[in-house]
Amino acid sequence: MSNIIKEFNEYREKMNKLILSHDNLAIKRLFNLDMKTYQDGALSSQTKEMLGLATSMVLRCDDCIKYHLEKCKNLNVNDKEMYEIFSVAVLVGGSVVIPHLRRAAEYWLELSTL
Amino acid sequence: MSNIIKEFNEYREKMNKLILSHDNLAIKRLFNLDMKTYQDGALSSQTKEMLGLATSMVLRCDDCIKYHLEKCKNLNVNDKEMYEIFSVAVLVGGSVVIPHLRRAAEYWLELSTL
Amino acid sequence: MSNIIKEFNEYREKMNKLILSHDNLAIKRLFNLDMKTYQDGALSSQTKEMLGLATSMVLRCDDCIKYHLEKCKNLNVNDKEMYEIFSVAVLVGGSVVIPHLRRAAEYWLELSTL
Amino acid sequence: MSNIIKEFNEYREKMNKLILSHDNLAIKRLFNLDMKTYQDGALSSQTKEMLGLATSMVLRCDDCIKYHLEKCKNLNVNDKEMYEIFSVAVLVGGSVVIPHLRRAAEYWLELSTL
Amino acid sequence: MSNIIKEFNEYREKMNKLILSHDNLAIKRLFNLDMKTYQDGALSSQTKEMLGLATSMVLRCDDCIKYHLEKCKNLNVNDKEMYEIFSVAVLVGGSVVIPHLRRAAEYWLELSTL
Amino acid sequence: MSNIIKEFNEYREKMNKLILSHDNLAIKRLFNLDMKTYQDGALSSQTKEMLGLATSMVLRCDDCIKYHLEKCKNLNVNDKEMYEIFSVAVLVGGSVVIPHLRRAAEYWLELSTL
Repeated sequence: MSNIIKEFNEYREKMNKLILSHDNLAIKRLFNLDMKTYQDGALSSQTKEMLGLATSMVLRCDDCIKYHLEKCKNLNVNDKEMYEIFSVAVLVGGSVVIPHLRRAAEYWLELSTL
Repeated sequence: MSNIIKEFNEYREKMNKLILSHDNLAIKRLFNLDMKTYQDGALSSQTKEMLGLATSMVLRCDDCIKYHLEKCKNLNVNDKEMYEIFSVAVLVGGSVVIPHLRRAAEYWLELSTL
Repeated sequence: MSNIIKEFNEYREKMNKLILSHDNLAIKRLFNLDMKTYQDGALSSQTKEMLGLATSMVLRCDDCIKYHLEKCKNLNVNDKEMYEIFSVAVLVGGSVVIPHLRRAAEYWLELSTL
Repeated sequence: MSNIIKEFNEYREKMNKLILSHDNLAIKRLFNLDMKTYQDGALSSQTKEMLGLATSMVLRCDDCIKYHLEKCKNLNVNDKEMYEIFSVAVLVGGSVVIPHLRRAAEYWLELSTL
Repeated sequence: MSNIIKEFNEYREKMNKLILSHDNLAIKRLFNLDMKTYQDGALSSQTKEMLGLATSMVLRCDDCIKYHLEKCKNLNVNDKEMYEIFSVAVLVGGSVVIPHLRRAAEYWLELSTL
Repeated sequence: MSNIIKEFNEYREKMNKLILSHDNLAIKRLFNLDMKTYQDGALSSQTKEMLGLATSMVLRCDDCIKYHLEKCKNLNVNDKEMYEIFSVAVLVGGSVVIPHLRRAAEYWLELSTL
């Protein structure tokens, strides 16, 4: 796996473990909810991951973006679709989203060349 | 039409006219782009309006929310789907999104009873 | 009860009922968590409501501010303490918090004269 | 004076008085600083008010926008200049700034017809 | 001292010195206010640092979080209390706060093992 | 050229190329608009770059800040003026802007010693 993908996932997993080891009930429930919300329902998991990605972009959270990019890749979002998600995010969130778009484009390319 | 829908649309239209009358090229292009970006492409217009709505919710822009709610209604998003969009928005953006969810739920109900 | 307090609480309750009637599991759990998180634990409920208020102020959510102001009043936060919370919020969040501080000061005064 | 301008200024003044009556030192200093920062220096007061306006727009604070619009009007910013400030704000902050632009355009027109 | 703590504090100090060397009065006063606001008053310094931390978390400012984490550690906030602050911040600010929670949890652990 | 300036500009250029290679019309237009909006008009390019910088600071976008700092340097904004822009940004955006001010001050110094 590419370095930037591997590093991100390993750090993420290690820190999640640390956080959950503290047994805070509210945090545990939020982490749990964070997975359940994106499962297939009236909307497909794919559509929900797109929503998760676009909202993460306008809130300019690089790690959230990486997470949802990988999910979108696994759920077969293609390049043209991805760049249309990007276009909505930059339009809604403005030019301050562009630096995050740069990192998203880089990460998406990495995911595409695995 | 319901009052809150009518008022919103009339104010919106009137002020857009005022703004565009000033002939600022950058603003005109942005307004133009704001419509074009949501048209059918690799992603359907429906999916893009969902993205527009969810991003507007996490950025907590009530007027943007109203605008995309009406588009979603016209593009046949149903109640179950809408509440799943709501759920992603509140999860990603946190409990500060809830007051906007209240107003969104009210507006969505109005749109549904036209 | 004062009008602005009554109106806020009635709208809030009515819309929460509407939202929860749609039976979206993720939203129900988030609403539930939203109450549980502020209960007494290692930190007192009073301290947690102060945290809820300060975070709502820097995120500039008027309705969230009103909600936590009432909780703080019920948990016996006094005027001097409240204005110190206000001071941290304005310092951290900047002068854009000031308009929200105005509405918070007005609401706090209303709560104090019930 | 126009109603929306008068109402805004009266509420603002009344609440500032309420806030300052509580004698919180940090808040008093921040309010003081909030005036001093926009005075003539290496940059003119006019340029600083433009900065105050543009930053208020991207942070989407309607009351802050109104305040700086009046200052800009008093410091002889003209229509063409104002709409160029608007264009930067909408570009940087994205389409979620547009509803605030509508209210800004309305308020600017009111200020211009006094 | 741990590397991530030492690096953060050294960079912070060096840059503060650079900034203050420019003798901008408003910035100097803001820096001064930034220290004074957290001193004991009607609320304890500990409570105020908790407020500073929680607000920094929902505004997702990693450096601000680190700064207040160290203050909280020095003022004897314990692990259970810290994770309850974390829980309020994630609830209010949503899942976009989680990546900042990861870095906060890591930094808090470092501070705890000095 | 200094390392932090060179690295920033090279990464920026490389990723812009990647993004534009995907031929998404909306993104291309936004990138185009992003350049055109800062050109001389009723307001000078210098004033507009100051607006771009201040808005980027309160939205806390480090890369956007770097970009506009270089533009401001090329358009002969001097040190005293720059620190007054900084002061407005920190006042409006609050103490969470300070970490970005640190990095801005560092980058500005680098640009000044080329």
